[in-house]
Amino acid sequence: MVESRPLDALNRARDKKVIVELKNGKQYIGALKAFDIHINVVLEDAEERENDEVKRKLGVIFIRGDTITIISPE
Amino acid sequence: MVESRPLDALNRARDKKVIVELKNGKQYIGALKAFDIHINVVLEDAEERENDEVKRKLGVIFIRGDTITIISPE
Amino acid sequence: MVESRPLDALNRARDKKVIVELKNGKQYIGALKAFDIHINVVLEDAEERENDEVKRKLGVIFIRGDTITIISPE
Amino acid sequence: MVESRPLDALNRARDKKVIVELKNGKQYIGALKAFDIHINVVLEDAEERENDEVKRKLGVIFIRGDTITIISPE
Amino acid sequence: MVESRPLDALNRARDKKVIVELKNGKQYIGALKAFDIHINVVLEDAEERENDEVKRKLGVIFIRGDTITIISPE
Amino acid sequence: MVESRPLDALNRARDKKVIVELKNGKQYIGALKAFDIHINVVLEDAEERENDEVKRKLGVIFIRGDTITIISPE
Amino acid sequence: MVESRPLDALNRARDKKVIVELKNGKQYIGALKAFDIHINVVLEDAEERENDEVKRKLGVIFIRGDTITIISPE
Repeated sequence: MVESRPLDALNRARDKKVIVELKNGKQYIGALKAFDIHINVVLEDAEERENDEVKRKLGVIFIRGDTITIISPE
Repeated sequence: MVESRPLDALNRARDKKVIVELKNGKQYIGALKAFDIHINVVLEDAEERENDEVKRKLGVIFIRGDTITIISPE
Repeated sequence: MVESRPLDALNRARDKKVIVELKNGKQYIGALKAFDIHINVVLEDAEERENDEVKRKLGVIFIRGDTITIISPE
Repeated sequence: MVESRPLDALNRARDKKVIVELKNGKQYIGALKAFDIHINVVLEDAEERENDEVKRKLGVIFIRGDTITIISPE
Repeated sequence: MVESRPLDALNRARDKKVIVELKNGKQYIGALKAFDIHINVVLEDAEERENDEVKRKLGVIFIRGDTITIISPE
Repeated sequence: MVESRPLDALNRARDKKVIVELKNGKQYIGALKAFDIHINVVLEDAEERENDEVKRKLGVIFIRGDTITIISPE
Repeated sequence: MVESRPLDALNRARDKKVIVELKNGKQYIGALKAFDIHINVVLEDAEERENDEVKRKLGVIFIRGDTITIISPE
């Protein structure tokens, strides 16, 4: 399997459940619906966790790319 | 439903009540009236919350994009 | 009323009294005389507040855009 | 009086005494000799203040724009 | 052996086990599958360590380039 | 004497002894040998000071522009 | 000897032992094998030091330019 660009990995995670972690330590878990080259991200059925504890149900959430550290399929 | 770009999600939230959270921990809730590719945002009938507590009524507010972490319809 | 771009909201606040808040927590209140796409801003008859307390009278003040979090008409 | 661009305000302050404040809390007071679109600034007969106390005489000083929060004629 | 560009070193590490360290102190170890000019990186079979202690198994992980300090083959 | 651009001031300091201060509080003193539009700087016969105390002799030193706050001829 | 551009100084240090210091206080010492205009750097036979104490042997290391404060030949 050839994979040369990081965004290909995000593309393969589309519509799947991912965890997105921010520089401020917050985590958002939801279905990856959209992303762009700035790594701006939209999740659906999202919830916010802090220290692995659910804090809030958020539905749709737009996350600004420059606050993100990692994105990983759950 | 096809959705490929993060800004489409913001477009769908136009005129609706959203919560905008900043890197400094502040939250602004109001009707999303405008946004651009830098994620600069304008809210109407906005109020500021900190730790989910209302701090101020602000009316119209311009928020600079690079201070924003997330935007979510309430 | 159609409003699609965030800078339109700043344009409508021109010559009016606005509050500008910075990432370092300082607030500047004055008449909005100029702004540009970087959100660099010029206020006249400006005063600096910290925790809603007046600290200094400043007259004309140039504020660098990348230090700003929000701008709101008073 | 028409004024539409923030840099016009800096231009009008040329050769006049200004105060420049940095993100790290330091203040530089001197005659504004030069600036550019990055808001890089050169002062002459400059002195450094911290908490409104003179710390050092500096003569000519180049200040990198991205460390600046505000510039105001004294 | 001629090597003139930093990305050549990453290219030579492709498919090999690398350690990626972030500005927030976290470490990710895994097989380097992809990177781009922003140093966005994708690892496979990744695990997260903090102070050299394994915290989580992550499988595939996308790491945003601007949070990275160093990348080194293990 | 006409001086309109900040980099002219650096140009006039070429080969002279300057002090360069960084965002992290460190000071480097040496002969200014080179600079570019990013304000990347090279000093020769440089020494590092912290709180005006000499910490290290460094010889030639390259300083990345975005870490610099001020540059001033000694 | 004419030297006008900062990157010339890095070029002259190629294959020589240099110390690279990061914004987070870490130091990496090794042979400078590659760099680019972002000041991304590759060292060989690198070791990490903190407060001048060796912490780790790293072999080849890629350092992201925007985390670097200074580079100096040892």
